[in-house]
Amino acid sequence: MRPRRYPGGVTFPVVGMVGGGQLARMTHEAGIPLGIRFKLLSDTPQDSAAQVVGDVVVGDYRDLDTLRDFARGCDVITFDHEHVPTAHLRALEADGIPVRPGPDALVHAQDKGVMRAKLTEIGMPCPRHRIVTDPADVVAFAAEGAADASSDGFPVVLKTVRGGYDGKGVWVVRTAEEAAEAAEPFRAGVPVLAEEKVDFVRELAANVVRSPHGQAVAYPVVESQQVDGVCDTVIAPAPGLAPGLALHAEEMALRIAKELGVVGHLAVELFETADGRVLVNELAMRPHNSGHWTQDGAITSQFANHVRAVLDLPLGDPRPRAPWTVMCNVLGGDYPDMYSAYLHCMARDPGLKIHMYGKDVKPGRKVGHVNTYGDDLADVLERARHAAGYLKGTITE
Amino acid sequence: MRPRRYPGGVTFPVVGMVGGGQLARMTHEAGIPLGIRFKLLSDTPQDSAAQVVGDVVVGDYRDLDTLRDFARGCDVITFDHEHVPTAHLRALEADGIPVRPGPDALVHAQDKGVMRAKLTEIGMPCPRHRIVTDPADVVAFAAEGAADASSDGFPVVLKTVRGGYDGKGVWVVRTAEEAAEAAEPFRAGVPVLAEEKVDFVRELAANVVRSPHGQAVAYPVVESQQVDGVCDTVIAPAPGLAPGLALHAEEMALRIAKELGVVGHLAVELFETADGRVLVNELAMRPHNSGHWTQDGAITSQFANHVRAVLDLPLGDPRPRAPWTVMCNVLGGDYPDMYSAYLHCMARDPGLKIHMYGKDVKPGRKVGHVNTYGDDLADVLERARHAAGYLKGTITE
Repeated sequence: MRPRRYPGGVTFPVVGMVGGGQLARMTHEAGIPLGIRFKLLSDTPQDSAAQVVGDVVVGDYRDLDTLRDFARGCDVITFDHEHVPTAHLRALEADGIPVRPGPDALVHAQDKGVMRAKLTEIGMPCPRHRIVTDPADVVAFAAEGAADASSDGFPVVLKTVRGGYDGKGVWVVRTAEEAAEAAEPFRAGVPVLAEEKVDFVRELAANVVRSPHGQAVAYPVVESQQVDGVCDTVIAPAPGLAPGLALHAEEMALRIAKELGVVGHLAVELFETADGRVLVNELAMRPHNSGHWTQDGAITSQFANHVRAVLDLPLGDPRPRAPWTVMCNVLGGDYPDMYSAYLHCMARDPGLKIHMYGKDVKPGRKVGHVNTYGDDLADVLERARHAAGYLKGTITE
Repeated sequence: MRPRRYPGGVTFPVVGMVGGGQLARMTHEAGIPLGIRFKLLSDTPQDSAAQVVGDVVVGDYRDLDTLRDFARGCDVITFDHEHVPTAHLRALEADGIPVRPGPDALVHAQDKGVMRAKLTEIGMPCPRHRIVTDPADVVAFAAEGAADASSDGFPVVLKTVRGGYDGKGVWVVRTAEEAAEAAEPFRAGVPVLAEEKVDFVRELAANVVRSPHGQAVAYPVVESQQVDGVCDTVIAPAPGLAPGLALHAEEMALRIAKELGVVGHLAVELFETADGRVLVNELAMRPHNSGHWTQDGAITSQFANHVRAVLDLPLGDPRPRAPWTVMCNVLGGDYPDMYSAYLHCMARDPGLKIHMYGKDVKPGRKVGHVNTYGDDLADVLERARHAAGYLKGTITE
């Protein structure tokens, strides 16, 4: 008889999730089959994840005492968002609670200045950038990038270094006058990063998951289509992407995960340029909208692999299950009743995968997404777009 | 602008699940993407499903007041098991709560006598059977089935008409003496059904899902391998099953679902005989162990389709996603720590799908299952058996 692998009646670990949004909801869903316990720190009892999790603490993640109370009894802490103050994360670590990703990694997803500096240091291609101090400095930054004397180097993208999220905290300025109008953050003393406005042909995302002992997996590179600055459609894999460039992007994301010490899911948002390069746009250290397709399209979803990574379990196979998978976000429209739209969507497409977040419908708010998969990209795209449009109310037949 | 499909801010429905076992746990998991609310009536706060559900009522389903309180605020009631008294279900229906499956259907999964009578009435092939009243009657039943004067017609299977579950409440008697020894249920006044012991070549299961308005889908017929009367391995689809017999079995299950008015998932356990027939063994009106493979092997899982059926939503595509999917149950063994076995299992097989139920390990208790899928049945079987054996502790390398 073989000895017990562990002494005593070992129980399954408790994963503490800070933040009650849809990413937490879907991480809980992915954790259920592993038999682990899931504990949630949520702003309200109505938050997306709080509706479906058994063990919910309602509290403010900005309050260190609340965080500490929550973390007691958790075997590891992970996140639905990147807003927990670094000092709090360090305090939890000092208390002996594993925080994954840790504060030293997470700061690169919290502070765009730190992120750009680090990526440049490790040789990752980025848009031209530097911290700017006032509107005149923006004009100077633009001029530094002017191709010749006849150009002023505009447009330029300005980003608040911290707090930018999903298109907010980002301004495109096209002239010196617009730079002067964007003076508010400077007056408020908010650090601002200026970046060249990359003339990209499309946006890609390279998603990887890394575990504490350094195992990592890379999902196929996807194409991410934005509408009004919000992710609208993700196609996996990115159609027509040169195999060499896809491999390069995957290697970049794996390199970034390693160099930054990421644990868990890392999304590297990329610009693909007309001359066949990829530049890093943003980083997210958590499950990410560009990885939602993996729930139905990959052998192991980003959520399942995130859980496995934060528990330092061997990672699951990231390969796709179908030639094409398409994800379309469902944004709130003018019609609050998405449930009755299920009848049409499900009857029309028995293979449609609906993922709703339990959120109230507000115009423009991400309230869910749909996934479709199959052999024929045009068909798979049409099915996802129809369903998302019908749920939103922009398609009525 | 199109009118709202519904007036007012329609909220998503609340599905009330009676019973906190693993079937409830996995149904909740499958319901999360639909954005529905899930409310659980559980015997204890530690039950498998109670660990992962947000809205849990702890109470006794045998108490009508408890059931009524629970059902208030639910849009529909469904079940993790078949033990709720019929009279209670009728009372809930009288209160205006949809009960799915309803009492008139569910009685066929609760009472083997009623089940056999109904199946015989609608022409479904069953083992020879009748209600027996005492050991002498068992001998008479056996003799009625004797092939010739040299046979006494034994062995015979005796089943308590109600309360039989997963191999309990069933006795095989091989002689008149053994029939006399099995006299206890008769003395206790428990109705007993005698059945011929079918000389089957293997066991199959035909799983279907039916919605209140009569839509139904059939999963591929699977082979179910039992060890010591407990399901051990399920292979989807059943290897080498003649296409005509597979179709016949699917049609039988669809017919039974319709004639019995089943709503939700129906498992029809079948015997395949050497002469190419199938006979109905048992019915279960809920997600079933023989359908666990659908979580990773079918486009829509049995759990997702059960939820869709009880909500009268259009059903999802039941077709397989891979040529072969294998499910192996994980039974409790001598080693209480299954979590540390994850390291080996996940590292050995990155495509392995583990489903654990959060239950304490007790010898012989179903505490989880694993699914594997792929193109090569021998490989898929080996992977599932290795993982289940390693988790159990019967394989150590």
